[in-house]
Amino acid sequence: MGTEQDADAAIAPARRRGRPAKSASIADDTRSSIVAAAATEFARDGYDSTSMRGIARAAAVDPALVRHYFTSKADLFAEAIAAPMRPDRMVKRALAGPRDQVGVNLVRYLVETLDQPGASDRVIRMLHTALGQEFAARMLRQFIIREVLKRIAKELGEKDSELRASFAATQVVGLVVARYGIRIEPLASASPDEVVNRIGPVVQWHLMGNPLP
Amino acid sequence: MGTEQDADAAIAPARRRGRPAKSASIADDTRSSIVAAAATEFARDGYDSTSMRGIARAAAVDPALVRHYFTSKADLFAEAIAAPMRPDRMVKRALAGPRDQVGVNLVRYLVETLDQPGASDRVIRMLHTALGQEFAARMLRQFIIREVLKRIAKELGEKDSELRASFAATQVVGLVVARYGIRIEPLASASPDEVVNRIGPVVQWHLMGNPLP
Repeated sequence: MGTEQDADAAIAPARRRGRPAKSASIADDTRSSIVAAAATEFARDGYDSTSMRGIARAAAVDPALVRHYFTSKADLFAEAIAAPMRPDRMVKRALAGPRDQVGVNLVRYLVETLDQPGASDRVIRMLHTALGQEFAARMLRQFIIREVLKRIAKELGEKDSELRASFAATQVVGLVVARYGIRIEPLASASPDEVVNRIGPVVQWHLMGNPLP
Repeated sequence: MGTEQDADAAIAPARRRGRPAKSASIADDTRSSIVAAAATEFARDGYDSTSMRGIARAAAVDPALVRHYFTSKADLFAEAIAAPMRPDRMVKRALAGPRDQVGVNLVRYLVETLDQPGASDRVIRMLHTALGQEFAARMLRQFIIREVLKRIAKELGEKDSELRASFAATQVVGLVVARYGIRIEPLASASPDEVVNRIGPVVQWHLMGNPLP
């Protein structure tokens, strides 16, 4: 499972993570062939039905080697789609604080990450692909449900938590698309604080029903 | 300016609207050449800097002829990008009711429109294009700001109405992307009432600060 350092490194180039210090071109090749096999397997079978073991088989390497490079299926998936932002880690971090601050913490982390120069480009590219190709949409959907929504639901423990989490996702996805993709003004130029103050409480309300300010 | 019937016809094939009853292939050709010229002008100059007169010039037709086929620049733009949904008309309809129902009315109209079979496909395709090509993003951005946000702001009359409207747009855009594009569950299968109850009040809060239920 990921560490806090992983979360901080979420926007660092993904291909450097997990590479052994004494990497040689053979190790690079092995790693690349695992990622390539993963991309093929995910695309064909979707996120849920793809296993680390199946990817190892497709890449013709030992499963232990896959686990040497990637700590989880989510890790490998993120690399396969070259995602710079890790919603699963974002959620983990937000859930680490007080329950009534989940929305604000999540939005602050998101905005601080994506406001950095160039950071939002790949996220927008990923959303662009997901809106254009069904297999990409399916992968992203399954990843979000499995690694984000179910995790939140489990943590919050309420009956309709998954439904709540999926509605919270609409506000988060919409913020990303409108601020960083279409860049609607004055939202796109609004300060991080302004965004956190106006979006954070909504995410919190969606998740837990806390009253808005 | 559009009528209420226009709003109901928002998902009907756009190219049939405004065509004279006795249309001949010459009229079709003229209309098509106006739309083609508009697409070129909008793409080159953006939404704000393109005029009906300039489009007429580019299409080598009389400006009166452009106005014969299209009641406004927004009409022509919507046709140029083949938009099945008209956010400007949606907003107009939502603003026609009581002020504390703007959010709920807007979301209900949106969901009832896009839940119809096939209706969301072109909206998602438009968003896909806008996330992939800067000129498409610019056009969509300018259209939304000019025809949607400024209209809401003018109607609500508050100092920060444009900022509020752009934040409301995040919730609306996110609903469209998550429910109809990525199709995140359980949101994607939720009933229209469920969506209206969970998204409508948020849009209302973004716009006017009304407390959430």
